[in-house]
Amino acid sequence: MSGHQVKVAIVGSTGYGGVELIRFLLEHPQVEIVSVISSASAGAPITDGFPHLTNIVVQNLDGVDIQEIAKKADLVFTATPSGVSSKLVPQLVEAGLKVIDLSGDFRLKDGATYEEWYKHTAPEADLLEKAVYGLSEIYGHEVVGQSLISNPGCYSTASLLGLIPALSAGWIDPSTIIIDAKSGVSGAGRGTSLTVHYAEINENFKAYKINKHQHIPEIEQTLAGIAKQPVTVTFTTHLVPMTRGIMSTMYATLTGFHTEKELVELYTQYYEGRRFVRIRPEGQWPATKEVLGSNYCDIGFSVDSRTGRVTIVSVIDNVVKGAAGQAIQNMNLMMGWDETLGLRNAPVYP
Amino acid sequence: MSGHQVKVAIVGSTGYGGVELIRFLLEHPQVEIVSVISSASAGAPITDGFPHLTNIVVQNLDGVDIQEIAKKADLVFTATPSGVSSKLVPQLVEAGLKVIDLSGDFRLKDGATYEEWYKHTAPEADLLEKAVYGLSEIYGHEVVGQSLISNPGCYSTASLLGLIPALSAGWIDPSTIIIDAKSGVSGAGRGTSLTVHYAEINENFKAYKINKHQHIPEIEQTLAGIAKQPVTVTFTTHLVPMTRGIMSTMYATLTGFHTEKELVELYTQYYEGRRFVRIRPEGQWPATKEVLGSNYCDIGFSVDSRTGRVTIVSVIDNVVKGAAGQAIQNMNLMMGWDETLGLRNAPVYP
Amino acid sequence: MSGHQVKVAIVGSTGYGGVELIRFLLEHPQVEIVSVISSASAGAPITDGFPHLTNIVVQNLDGVDIQEIAKKADLVFTATPSGVSSKLVPQLVEAGLKVIDLSGDFRLKDGATYEEWYKHTAPEADLLEKAVYGLSEIYGHEVVGQSLISNPGCYSTASLLGLIPALSAGWIDPSTIIIDAKSGVSGAGRGTSLTVHYAEINENFKAYKINKHQHIPEIEQTLAGIAKQPVTVTFTTHLVPMTRGIMSTMYATLTGFHTEKELVELYTQYYEGRRFVRIRPEGQWPATKEVLGSNYCDIGFSVDSRTGRVTIVSVIDNVVKGAAGQAIQNMNLMMGWDETLGLRNAPVYP
Amino acid sequence: MSGHQVKVAIVGSTGYGGVELIRFLLEHPQVEIVSVISSASAGAPITDGFPHLTNIVVQNLDGVDIQEIAKKADLVFTATPSGVSSKLVPQLVEAGLKVIDLSGDFRLKDGATYEEWYKHTAPEADLLEKAVYGLSEIYGHEVVGQSLISNPGCYSTASLLGLIPALSAGWIDPSTIIIDAKSGVSGAGRGTSLTVHYAEINENFKAYKINKHQHIPEIEQTLAGIAKQPVTVTFTTHLVPMTRGIMSTMYATLTGFHTEKELVELYTQYYEGRRFVRIRPEGQWPATKEVLGSNYCDIGFSVDSRTGRVTIVSVIDNVVKGAAGQAIQNMNLMMGWDETLGLRNAPVYP
Repeated sequence: MSGHQVKVAIVGSTGYGGVELIRFLLEHPQVEIVSVISSASAGAPITDGFPHLTNIVVQNLDGVDIQEIAKKADLVFTATPSGVSSKLVPQLVEAGLKVIDLSGDFRLKDGATYEEWYKHTAPEADLLEKAVYGLSEIYGHEVVGQSLISNPGCYSTASLLGLIPALSAGWIDPSTIIIDAKSGVSGAGRGTSLTVHYAEINENFKAYKINKHQHIPEIEQTLAGIAKQPVTVTFTTHLVPMTRGIMSTMYATLTGFHTEKELVELYTQYYEGRRFVRIRPEGQWPATKEVLGSNYCDIGFSVDSRTGRVTIVSVIDNVVKGAAGQAIQNMNLMMGWDETLGLRNAPVYP
Repeated sequence: MSGHQVKVAIVGSTGYGGVELIRFLLEHPQVEIVSVISSASAGAPITDGFPHLTNIVVQNLDGVDIQEIAKKADLVFTATPSGVSSKLVPQLVEAGLKVIDLSGDFRLKDGATYEEWYKHTAPEADLLEKAVYGLSEIYGHEVVGQSLISNPGCYSTASLLGLIPALSAGWIDPSTIIIDAKSGVSGAGRGTSLTVHYAEINENFKAYKINKHQHIPEIEQTLAGIAKQPVTVTFTTHLVPMTRGIMSTMYATLTGFHTEKELVELYTQYYEGRRFVRIRPEGQWPATKEVLGSNYCDIGFSVDSRTGRVTIVSVIDNVVKGAAGQAIQNMNLMMGWDETLGLRNAPVYP
Repeated sequence: MSGHQVKVAIVGSTGYGGVELIRFLLEHPQVEIVSVISSASAGAPITDGFPHLTNIVVQNLDGVDIQEIAKKADLVFTATPSGVSSKLVPQLVEAGLKVIDLSGDFRLKDGATYEEWYKHTAPEADLLEKAVYGLSEIYGHEVVGQSLISNPGCYSTASLLGLIPALSAGWIDPSTIIIDAKSGVSGAGRGTSLTVHYAEINENFKAYKINKHQHIPEIEQTLAGIAKQPVTVTFTTHLVPMTRGIMSTMYATLTGFHTEKELVELYTQYYEGRRFVRIRPEGQWPATKEVLGSNYCDIGFSVDSRTGRVTIVSVIDNVVKGAAGQAIQNMNLMMGWDETLGLRNAPVYP
Repeated sequence: MSGHQVKVAIVGSTGYGGVELIRFLLEHPQVEIVSVISSASAGAPITDGFPHLTNIVVQNLDGVDIQEIAKKADLVFTATPSGVSSKLVPQLVEAGLKVIDLSGDFRLKDGATYEEWYKHTAPEADLLEKAVYGLSEIYGHEVVGQSLISNPGCYSTASLLGLIPALSAGWIDPSTIIIDAKSGVSGAGRGTSLTVHYAEINENFKAYKINKHQHIPEIEQTLAGIAKQPVTVTFTTHLVPMTRGIMSTMYATLTGFHTEKELVELYTQYYEGRRFVRIRPEGQWPATKEVLGSNYCDIGFSVDSRTGRVTIVSVIDNVVKGAAGQAIQNMNLMMGWDETLGLRNAPVYP
């Protein structure tokens, strides 16, 4: 590839976020993958664990060596777990690399809140300050030219994109927000456990971490910024017996009378020019499969005049718009490129 | 079988509710199946459409002939669609048969409400009055000795059993109830359509009929009876890519301060002696697979002191407690038998 | 329960075979479960790991204590892994207990063959000799009155029941047998690994252990006994993205000309009086769901006059007829009871 | 798009093959989609039936009008059913269009054989003669510059690519070939029926059309051409409860002694330079998910010295390499382009 390419490294290449970064970056016209990194499997071919990459990624996995990365790469995606990124990212930033972090370690501006929800030691306050929260359609302009981006959580992305226009317009009462979220099992990552054991979760639907999920403070911090007042949400997460996809079904009391048609217009206008958010016409709600394998976030509405509440349905592919896809979108924005570069493919259907 | 057996007929034997009635009734010690009826397939062996019953049900399907049914049977389960039961049940009652109806045609006391939500002509008012709503754990005492039982809807059963004790105790504000319900695909029945086409719904999670599902007035009518005031709910239904199971995740504002422990105690006491409702200990929520193939309804709680709301999780197998199982439970209650007869099997796991 | 009940203990109660034994034994009219045993979780309630048994099994798990078991129980099911049963069973037999072993440790008469395929030390030869191979429909008469039964493998059960009548009649050439077998994921047990990680095996179909599965020598030993000559088979195993069910699709060259109708007749006659084997009519092949949750083995045929080969399709539920159900059937036979006691339920459909 | 683009039309745009053609062609650098055609839904937006294409395909569906197509397009993909293509394709060819037909109507050189297996009237003999069978890796050189390509069947593609190198080398006995094939449910198309009804096929594994599938004569015709003698195969098809993917597990007797290593070498050499066939190393077999959403065909081997047979495992995505992907590969070859244009994406994993 040409010398004008941006050279990227991926730390955490053997997780689902990592291999999805690889899938998209291979197609990206402005990028060259110079290093795929996994501390656990350094030296081995990535195809040992991911035979679907046979003949496609022929590099062996590298170990985590900051100096080596800095020599080879311009930009690093850290698809590392919470508690790991907090230690790794400062060193990468220090070494002059641009970093897009997919863990939750740099999303919360307040270190104490981070420590309460994540049970890890928070990164230094100045780095938390410096990290730009990369919810691309909302804060894309802040991402441009920055060097440390904190990529949003999967549930947060689906929920926030679905709530922000109405909240921003003052159409919903911020004290009434309830988020009932559902995720495919890949969201739990590649680590084995009984929770994601096939025979346990197949043909099963289960709730988990009710009111305790670590994406709660991230959602509340962002909504508070929009509403310009503290916001507290009720938040439930469920596992759906499927691999990919998130739906957030959200409830709020309307502050005035608004039809579905008005909501469709409000949101269409709000997201004008942003290809990856698609507002569905009245009476139509998106299903998760309609964004599968793509970077889209689709949103639909139901207004119930009997109760004065609106129901907002927002779907994404958790591995794409909820992780790797939005990370690449943020890279595009950072670099001043068209945000859709390398991400234009249609959803995989059926 | 002995002459003391109750002779039952099943109309609608070739739907999922019908074959599940057969599965359980075959094991029931007090019952003899004298006729399996299907207007569409009369004369054919049931195994033509359901080879899993090979060597088990050797009778051919009968047509719908009221006089024949009255000659052979004491009690009839009508697992017929809405709009069909309304016409059939009056004739069966007239012929002196006991009837347990699994359609929605006799659930709403107000014919006009029925017509609004079901888009069919309502049955006569006196028959609507006569029909006892068979939510067994709540109205079981009213079922005893009756001759026409209207079996509750699947979503209604999961939702009502989860809400009633708290509402009845005045612990939740009836104006704040939001029900986010999810169902396995068998709930849509055996009729073919693109909605339940495998490649469309597999690996997919979708919302449907938001605020428009016909179980809404049934839930509201029942909650109003408990709360002794009109109740309006926000109600969303979703399809989960699995065959069986319903979860209702329900939200309401607590009227006072109550811990999860207190809720567990309240519900445990409320359902004392009712084998089929199982209250989960604090911090544990049931998953749908934990009731698969059985008549259980399992319930768990989360209280969020930050928002003052309780989240109630209630699960059933939609084909069993949500249809055939509860119908048999109602038969047991009607006849003055132990409500668990023929229904004691443990869930199928995994 | 009455004093005439047989008292049974289950070692390995926290595996899928173990909990399925519990599910069926709870319904068995002649049995009392006196101890549920798990070396790993002794002292804990079984509902810690299996909340579906809430309010159903209230006993805590016992540890493995031979003297305690002998005091409490008459008969023990050992649903323990290969290499564990070989050590445990001799002690249980020594203590005077009847034993039905679900591992593979006592299936092969030749210790050397066992060690080659299982990579464990074989049990003593006299115990191997004493153990009766409990393929119920074939060797049920040998099971009666015995005290050590080796329960067949899941793949072996489906394959052997499908091949034996034709082989026994000399209708197929034993040197041409090819078995293409497919199993639901529960067959891999409850131990976590990447192979059975939901996101890896969902929407995936994969072959494994081709020509190396440990059920091969078990199948060959049995077929050799029937054919009265050594038999070598080609055997492939696959994982199907579903929880339960095995299909063996089997190929062999016909020694003469036989129609599907003749095969149906041959098999129907061979299995006359055996409720759990169902022969499908010409042109109809069983699907795995048609035996789900039940002890049935369903068999169908296709004869291709162009190639002179017969294709035999045999299905079971791997957890029932392939493990717990057949073990109980063997207990029934051992005790001289009707082989169907506690096992008469229809398949769960859909 | 630029005037140098080839203008393509897709007839049958509302089937699964059709929408998959759209997904790939949208990314193809040399192609412009000028018309998406559906006789049943002409005039409607394609997003009515496929909301995943919202904002992506904004054209309305066109009807089938040969003159209109000829005016707009250079090349037509006919993703129409068997029996429809036979009537449509001659008109398109007559109108001077290049045609790639995805039905089976032009695959069999002998019209009588077509009529026997397809139960439709065969196309004219001269058109059957003219149509090039587009199994790209085998007959790609014959495709170059042609104007009518018959795209291979999904099962045929997986099976033939797995068998041809060994058969061509004389390493397997052509009279011993047995193909045990398994397909995801999308292979059955988008037409609704009980066979593909979610609750019927989910958690189910079933065989169908044993020895009667219409891909049998296509496979035999091709193998005969390679072996230079008539070949008859035993062929079983099964439905797997997943959306996409085909595996052919194939058995044949080796004519001499060959190791897995030798087979890996033979196949690697045979497919040298063909990016879409990936030969797996000894002891490794591909799973269907490892090619999901991509145009790859992955192949692995097991040799059993005990039986003298080889087992060949070949997987594809039925909608891609088994339909739309190979059709585009054939277009690339026809036009003299790199065969991988528009098809280079890595499989979607997980």
